[in-house]
Amino acid sequence: MSDHIYKTLEITGSSKTSIEEAVEKAVARTGESVHNLRWFEAQDIRGHLADGKVDYWQVTVKVGFTVDP
Amino acid sequence: MSDHIYKTLEITGSSKTSIEEAVEKAVARTGESVHNLRWFEAQDIRGHLADGKVDYWQVTVKVGFTVDP
Amino acid sequence: MSDHIYKTLEITGSSKTSIEEAVEKAVARTGESVHNLRWFEAQDIRGHLADGKVDYWQVTVKVGFTVDP
Amino acid sequence: MSDHIYKTLEITGSSKTSIEEAVEKAVARTGESVHNLRWFEAQDIRGHLADGKVDYWQVTVKVGFTVDP
Amino acid sequence: MSDHIYKTLEITGSSKTSIEEAVEKAVARTGESVHNLRWFEAQDIRGHLADGKVDYWQVTVKVGFTVDP
Amino acid sequence: MSDHIYKTLEITGSSKTSIEEAVEKAVARTGESVHNLRWFEAQDIRGHLADGKVDYWQVTVKVGFTVDP
Amino acid sequence: MSDHIYKTLEITGSSKTSIEEAVEKAVARTGESVHNLRWFEAQDIRGHLADGKVDYWQVTVKVGFTVDP
Amino acid sequence: MSDHIYKTLEITGSSKTSIEEAVEKAVARTGESVHNLRWFEAQDIRGHLADGKVDYWQVTVKVGFTVDP
Amino acid sequence: MSDHIYKTLEITGSSKTSIEEAVEKAVARTGESVHNLRWFEAQDIRGHLADGKVDYWQVTVKVGFTVDP
Amino acid sequence: MSDHIYKTLEITGSSKTSIEEAVEKAVARTGESVHNLRWFEAQDIRGHLADGKVDYWQVTVKVGFTVDP
Amino acid sequence: MSDHIYKTLEITGSSKTSIEEAVEKAVARTGESVHNLRWFEAQDIRGHLADGKVDYWQVTVKVGFTVDP
Amino acid sequence: MSDHIYKTLEITGSSKTSIEEAVEKAVARTGESVHNLRWFEAQDIRGHLADGKVDYWQVTVKVGFTVDP
Repeated sequence: MSDHIYKTLEITGSSKTSIEEAVEKAVARTGESVHNLRWFEAQDIRGHLADGKVDYWQVTVKVGFTVDP
Repeated sequence: MSDHIYKTLEITGSSKTSIEEAVEKAVARTGESVHNLRWFEAQDIRGHLADGKVDYWQVTVKVGFTVDP
Repeated sequence: MSDHIYKTLEITGSSKTSIEEAVEKAVARTGESVHNLRWFEAQDIRGHLADGKVDYWQVTVKVGFTVDP
Repeated sequence: MSDHIYKTLEITGSSKTSIEEAVEKAVARTGESVHNLRWFEAQDIRGHLADGKVDYWQVTVKVGFTVDP
Repeated sequence: MSDHIYKTLEITGSSKTSIEEAVEKAVARTGESVHNLRWFEAQDIRGHLADGKVDYWQVTVKVGFTVDP
Repeated sequence: MSDHIYKTLEITGSSKTSIEEAVEKAVARTGESVHNLRWFEAQDIRGHLADGKVDYWQVTVKVGFTVDP
Repeated sequence: MSDHIYKTLEITGSSKTSIEEAVEKAVARTGESVHNLRWFEAQDIRGHLADGKVDYWQVTVKVGFTVDP
Repeated sequence: MSDHIYKTLEITGSSKTSIEEAVEKAVARTGESVHNLRWFEAQDIRGHLADGKVDYWQVTVKVGFTVDP
Repeated sequence: MSDHIYKTLEITGSSKTSIEEAVEKAVARTGESVHNLRWFEAQDIRGHLADGKVDYWQVTVKVGFTVDP
Repeated sequence: MSDHIYKTLEITGSSKTSIEEAVEKAVARTGESVHNLRWFEAQDIRGHLADGKVDYWQVTVKVGFTVDP
Repeated sequence: MSDHIYKTLEITGSSKTSIEEAVEKAVARTGESVHNLRWFEAQDIRGHLADGKVDYWQVTVKVGFTVDP
Repeated sequence: MSDHIYKTLEITGSSKTSIEEAVEKAVARTGESVHNLRWFEAQDIRGHLADGKVDYWQVTVKVGFTVDP
């Protein structure tokens, strides 16, 4: 366990519904190109407004994944 | 599009239910006095506690809106 | 009211479901050892990933509570 | 209580005498245009120097006030 | 001079040309609704990209202006 | 001297009168439960407003104290 | 529009002439390997000095681009 | 694993020798009063100087440990 | 006025009495070696504790002064 | 020299032994996929604890490398 | 190369014209008293406003220079 | 003790070997021009890379020293 190397990518997901779903979408998209996802950390919670309401939520996360040492 | 001027206001909404609803309330209240709301950015997620539970959620957001150039 | 003294503890709660539930768990656990909880402030929203999805949400909060002056 | 909406303004007060008086002046001036002031938070403590001494203290505060929900 | 009270507004200007022009536009627009502008401080330098180039520059500034004490 | 271990607690004191007194109260209260207080560092200067004035000052400090190595 | 996913890359451009040109070079270089560039945000403005003058400007930007959801 | 609750303490260790040893001492001291230590995060690297040299290194860490949910 | 060049020094003053006096001492000491002091900005408010009380206040300030262009 | 473009990657290395070795491992791993590494900057020093001791050190670094302009 | 020692000074330059010229003036002034200037890093971009326009730009930079080891 | 005035200088030391040695070199160099060094605080840990390895470590510290009141 002591030899893990992690890389991190920064990615923004969005959702009509919730902060959690925006994170899930960002994570799912990251998983299409890299494997061994291990953790995320939210960097920023924003949103697009239309007609005086939240049109969609945008959450930027850092996603960490293991690479071979 | 290149000539937009944005102003931002800082406002705190609260909700018994969720972080998302607290944001929606802050946005809705901002929309009563200014128009052309475009985005928000969460600044702070806090809450009031009572009886050892979250009594209501308080989210402070910056709301950006377009003004005529 | 003007003589209150507050202490703050930092605690991380986790949940399979939502950011809100992770906060509620952190608050509930704090309430087992101290009383007069008054507010919390989110410090960090993270999560553990498994199989390319959020396995559980982890939210670190500062919890403030009143102590006798 | 759970439905309060707060707005915040940023304002800088100054005083020949003390940090506290500079804050009081900023708060008093805010109260001339808005009501229901609830809290302030100091952002910055600065001062103007003349003849090698503090000529006046300048404190920038965020002032929060309640608006109808 | 020691009795000045300053307020600050946050505003974003944009320009096809330069960072400086984006600031100038933000300042000019602020001057339409308030007087006695005294200083600005850049908060954020961003831009919109199109066709792989900077389409316009966006600079967010805090603008400080004097109000009567 | 080289073997000291310090712990820090975060505590908020309040005062009707001044920032200094709010700090003194936070320090005094900490000294009721731990000994060997060595330093403090202000984290936050806030206040509660009533009738358009500062009702009391609230200062959050980190208090450091020595523990046996 | 609500389903966009953005990734961000961090890149530093340099220029003999101006901050704007350093940004343009960073953006242009990013556009060689990824498409659908949407925005940048300046992180850092630095420069290399030679003979007591700015030899070239170095600006680090985060560049955001859309990926398919 | 999904139900862990973590608390964090802030503690400063010191060492005549190295940054690593100062961290180890802070961790060892924390382990005397709480169990199930899981991680640390360095907050601050400082040192005391004497005779123009580093007399001892001081590292402040946050130590996280598991508590029963 | 447009051609001023400012330098800044960082200095910590202390006082048995108040935050303001600690600043005044830092400013006065700076004025012994440089002239044309123009402003200060507080960086840090700390203090030394003895017998469970504030023994003296320590305020670190940046002091800005004009130099010939 | 004035035309260099740098990219940065964020990577976390770990070591049973020291902070320096954790950095070296992160750098070495980065060098397997990109060339012309030029500098690193530590972002975060953390560690995993086991049996009340540091089990391994984890250092997150930004690694900068030159790309052709 | 591995034995360089750098010192940094903080200095603010101003210009009627541009951010770049304000930096150049700060650098030039620093070069009058120290040699071997190597890099600068912008800390703050501000400006003085008059008649609703930018009267002059003020940029605070840290300037790094080599000293003999 | 209560009347000390401290000044701080910012300096970067480098070493082929370790973070600690880079700090020691920065401190030693500072001690050549000022006396009564009291503490340092690390600001930044960076390094120069060559051949895919750390060529030398660079640590920027603030060094505090006492001046006569």
